[in-house]
This record gives sequence, C-alpha cells and structure tokens, in this order.
Amino acid sequence: MAQLWQGLTAEEWDTPQVVVHRGRLQDNIASMAAFARQHGVQVRPHVKTHKTWEIFAMQQAAGAVGLTCAKLGEAEVFLQRGVKSVLVAYPLVGTRKLERLFELMTRFPAAEVQTIVDSPERAAELAQAAAAQGVELPVWVKVDSGLRRVGVSPGAPAAELVREVRKLSGLRLLGLLTHAGHAYGAASYEQVAEIGAAEAGCLLETAELLAAEGVTGLGISVGSTPTVKVSGAVPGVTEIRPGNYVFYDATQVRLGVATPEQCALRVLTRVVARPEAGRIVIDAGAKTLALDKGAHGSDAVAGHGLIVGHEGAVIERLSEEHGVVRIAEDSPIRVGDVLEIIPNHSCPVANLTDELTAIGEDGSLETWNVIARGKMR
Amino acid sequence: MAQLWQGLTAEEWDTPQVVVHRGRLQDNIASMAAFARQHGVQVRPHVKTHKTWEIFAMQQAAGAVGLTCAKLGEAEVFLQRGVKSVLVAYPLVGTRKLERLFELMTRFPAAEVQTIVDSPERAAELAQAAAAQGVELPVWVKVDSGLRRVGVSPGAPAAELVREVRKLSGLRLLGLLTHAGHAYGAASYEQVAEIGAAEAGCLLETAELLAAEGVTGLGISVGSTPTVKVSGAVPGVTEIRPGNYVFYDATQVRLGVATPEQCALRVLTRVVARPEAGRIVIDAGAKTLALDKGAHGSDAVAGHGLIVGHEGAVIERLSEEHGVVRIAEDSPIRVGDVLEIIPNHSCPVANLTDELTAIGEDGSLETWNVIARGKMR
Repeated sequence: MAQLWQGLTAEEWDTPQVVVHRGRLQDNIASMAAFARQHGVQVRPHVKTHKTWEIFAMQQAAGAVGLTCAKLGEAEVFLQRGVKSVLVAYPLVGTRKLERLFELMTRFPAAEVQTIVDSPERAAELAQAAAAQGVELPVWVKVDSGLRRVGVSPGAPAAELVREVRKLSGLRLLGLLTHAGHAYGAASYEQVAEIGAAEAGCLLETAELLAAEGVTGLGISVGSTPTVKVSGAVPGVTEIRPGNYVFYDATQVRLGVATPEQCALRVLTRVVARPEAGRIVIDAGAKTLALDKGAHGSDAVAGHGLIVGHEGAVIERLSEEHGVVRIAEDSPIRVGDVLEIIPNHSCPVANLTDELTAIGEDGSLETWNVIARGKMR
Repeated sequence: MAQLWQGLTAEEWDTPQVVVHRGRLQDNIASMAAFARQHGVQVRPHVKTHKTWEIFAMQQAAGAVGLTCAKLGEAEVFLQRGVKSVLVAYPLVGTRKLERLFELMTRFPAAEVQTIVDSPERAAELAQAAAAQGVELPVWVKVDSGLRRVGVSPGAPAAELVREVRKLSGLRLLGLLTHAGHAYGAASYEQVAEIGAAEAGCLLETAELLAAEGVTGLGISVGSTPTVKVSGAVPGVTEIRPGNYVFYDATQVRLGVATPEQCALRVLTRVVARPEAGRIVIDAGAKTLALDKGAHGSDAVAGHGLIVGHEGAVIERLSEEHGVVRIAEDSPIRVGDVLEIIPNHSCPVANLTDELTAIGEDGSLETWNVIARGKMR
C-alpha cells in the first residue's frame, strides 16, 4: 500500500477513489511499444479503457500512430486535442451518425477519420453518403474471428466484401480488421494463445485469397490485450489495437496475461462497517467497481475484485454504494482502514469516475479528467 | 413505440439514448404520494435512482418532506438547489467525511442534514466530532432487517444503541431506520410481502422495548420500492424512503411490483448489425444498460433487459458498447431499426448517462441533466 501514497496517511484520503500508479502505467505502455517495434507493427490503442488525454499522450509519445474508439463523441474530444488519426471501430448506422461523421471530417480536415464496414449493405450506404459529400472514407473490413458479435466471416465472405468495397467510389479500403474478444472467456493462457494465433491467421488467409487476384498491400489489424502478444507477432500483421494493457485488471490476471503488480489502476476504498467478525462493508460498490466478472459477457472471475494484501478476503456482493466482503474472523482489518482493490475490469471503472488520481513514484499526485467518459453516442 | 416519440421518426433519433416517459413518471410519483397520504406516512424518496433536479421537484410538489441519498456529494447538489431536509443514509467514516459533513451544515444553515449510526463506536465518533463543532447532528439508528449489509440487529441490540445515542450530546435521535434490500432476491411477490411485513415489524418491536422504558416518539423509517406498499402500510411507521418507484424496471416487473407499462425509463437503441438471421447487435451495451440482473447482488433476471414489443428476443450478452440479441430467424427486425428497452435496473442506467430525454405525452422533448451523476464521494 505504502508505494501508492507516500507521504499520505489513510486518514487524508477521501474514498472511494480511482487511482493510477504512474510507474506501472508507464511500464505497461513502454513494454507494448517495445513489442510493436520488435515486430514492426503500428500501435493504434483503443482509448475506451482510459478515455483520458494524459494517458493517450503517453501512448502517442511511445509511438502510437493514432487511436481506436467506439463512439463519434469519443473521437471528437480527441480530435479537438489534435489527434491526427482516429479509427471509429463501430458500425455507423443511421442518418444522424453519418451526418456527425461528416461533420467531424469537415471540422478536422487535417485528421483522418477511419471506420469499419461489416456487410455489403453498410458498405453501399457509407459509400453513397461519402460520395454525396464528395469525400473518400477510409474503411477497414471488419472480420469476425470468433467473438460472434459484429463482422463478416473470414475467408471467402470477407474476400467478397473486400471486392465490393474496392468497387465503391466514396470508400478507400485500408485492410482487414478483427477483435478477438472471445479470448476473455478462455480457461487458460494456452487457450488465449490459440485464439491469438487464429485471430491473425484468419485475416492472413483472407489476404492470401485476395493476393492471388492481385489485391495486395492490405493492412492487417488485430490485437485484444489478452491475444496481442501472440497475434501481433505473426508476420504479415501491420497494426495492433490493444486497450486494456495500460491498466490491466483482475480479468487479465485470471487469464495469465498480467501479474497483480502490473495492474496500474486501483480503487481505494474505506471500511465503513464490520457488522460481524467475518463481514466488512466497504464504500466501493457497483457504482465504482462495476459488476463485470470478465469482459464481453465472460463471467469467469470469482468475486468483485482483488483486495491487495488480503488475498483471503472475498468481495461477495455489491450494491450500488456498498461492497460486502467476507474476511477471516481474526482479520486485523478495522473500520476506517483504507483498502486497495484491483477491479475485475478496469475499463468500466474508468468510465464511472470523472477523474483519475495519478500517483507518481515519488508520491506526487495529479488529477486527470476522464474527458471521454460517458460519451454514449 | 409510437407514444414514445410522437412526431419523430426512428431516423431522427441519435442512439443510444435514455428516455423518460413523463406521463408514466408522473403517475408513479402521484400513486406513491397517494399511498403515503392514505397511510399518514411522510415520503423521503431516495434520489439515487434519478439524481435529477426536475424529478425531485416533482416528488417535492407531490409532498416529499425531503430526500435520501448515499453520498455527501449528492447531498451538496440538492442542498444547493434549496432542499431543506437531506438524509445521507450511509455510514460516514473518516476525518474527511466528517469535515465535509460539517462544511455542508455550515454552508446550508437553513437545511437539516441527517445521517445514520450503526454501532456504538460510530455513534461516539460522530457525537464527539459534532460536539467539537458545537452542532447537534440528527441521526437515525440503522437497523439490519435482513439484507445483512450495514446496521445493528433489531430488538435488544438496536434498543441498546438507541440508549447509547440518547446519552451522547452532539447527537439528536430521530428514530429507527432500515432498508429491506433483500426483497430484491425474492422468488415471488408473496415473499416480497413477507419481507415487507418483517421490515416494519422488527423496527416496531424494537420501539416497543424502548416505549416500555419511556422512550417514545421515535420515527420509524422503512420502504424499499418492492416492500413499501406493505411495510409503509403498517400502523406506527412514520416515513418511507422508496427510490426506484419513479422509473421501475425489469427487476420490479419480475418481482410483481410493477407492470412493463409502468416502467418510465427506457433505453432507445439502434440495430447496428444482423450478422445472422437469428442474431442482431444493438448499440446499447454495458456502458448504457449496466450489467445488473437485479439489485444488491440478486442475479435473478434472465437477459439484460426487456425489448418492448419483441418479448421473444433475448439480450444474451453485453460488451461495453454492443448488445448481442437472439431473435427469431424470421423476425422482421432490420438493421437501422430503433428498439426500446426496459432495463433490468434503472438506477445504474441513470448514473451512466449525463442527461435524460423526457418525452411528454404530446411528444414534446426536454433534456434533464443528471446533476448528481457519478458523485462517488
């Protein structure tokens, strides 16, 4: 605990509070950048994890070529700060979304705004709208590598969509993109690694089909945080888009992707009651920790977070503002103590707080606003 | 759907969006107010559900004597708008919390700020701090009626804590308070009703013990939304504190407490993909709908919300920005359609959005800011 607040006592903290350990954060960013350099791939981190300018600036300084986000409202706040390349990796459907996309392209002419297409119908719709605006929209063909969410199947169907997109004026094809989010449901790191190999493999096989027709030079974009060290190392991959790696969390620990020490985001919470020897109540509930027990619907983590230094304690249930924790009846934990929790999923935790408290290795404190928090549209 | 956006087409909505149907909201508020008048109890609604000034103003106009909240930061935004009686129904532990409490009492001298005590140690701590400030703090003795979260056991232990509090200068005893949140885990409305009867019963039995010693005139405060129509009707109860009733949600529907028609808060979401005949993807994920399958750790609701008019559709899994929905292969649902979802738990949904779109019965639209959103401290 000490290293998280040199010079500060528990009494001085108001709780709950979402803190980021700067040294760990910098290490995580640097090691992903080193991995990318080693394998000659570009990093386009997904900013949904932190939604914070200070952290993206660190990723940019480490070589990120741009960013990935899910919402136009997220793209806007980063474009306003001068980011030059933004991928909105989400199907943009409906008149208002297309109007807003073109508004952004007009407001930020020096920036490139990329998006995805996942079907011939959406490709035709986007192409028509872009042509009507007299713009050319850079798009990735979104491939479903097994998450079974959005995307076209790899191989022949993906190749066919590429041919369609190449025919359409208004669209500029960037390449093939996938997100192997199903890795979050894996039972072991071996399974994660298999999924990572297949994630890159299915895009590269599709690219080979097209190369045989003379369609070459396609970008190949992969990389969820669990799989990226495998899929990002496959020759032929050009870009990786990990997000969670800046913070990691108890889900990544469960998957064998990170150690608890690497987890840079922690929730500081106070013990507000000990109604029984074996039960304490903390002031971090679902409104702070979120209810995630994994990601993408995976439900594999036990409890609602890891309490650092109290591995036997189990966060059994969360109300919005209370966490109910089972502890040993002889535990020294006392009402008023501050505990440090590694959450199950750091992304929603960052989305639930207006600010992050960044703690330097010297104990210095900085407040970072979560500028893209809650941009639901 | 029509009644939710008279004069507007699906195309004109940007999604996802959290909407509140004003007519339903007003009916819910009016019917709780009528219940309270009928049984001669005061209403002190918990504002965690909506965190919105416009909605509390409607509750006040219907007779609410003040409000209940969980955080000092929530109390502050409502005190700033002139609310005269605020109950912070949460154990205030730690130097900073007490400093902030007294700061609020100093800034808003015309308002009464109440809180709770759940143990002799906390009572002594609060009393000492209040006495040092030269103020008298109005407190409720928090009783655990079965949620097994925070609070002293009813009967002798609660009576003993009342005696302690009465001895302490610095505290002014208001009465006995409980929250029967365990009703959210009930299997039937019959069970909910049993819990509601016990909720009031355990406080009244404690009050009788004290009356035998000449301690009379204690307030008796009960009432979670599921149980309030039972516990609030028990003679001797003086105040009810329901919160969720303004919106209701799929959890209240499951419990038999509300009908889908009474649910005033809905999420409007667009179908962004239909990768298979039997699967659609919607643009409302966990960042909009939250992952709750009940409340207080109850996990009893199937799926992640009710899709109005498509009862066969099941929201099977949520990523942060995607909902994956199983539909009939012959379903007429098309990409671009807007669907209306009754969420499992409306409180976290309101906490995840910066604004609510209020839709009048005439189709008029108003934006309400969720002023106490994200006040984690």
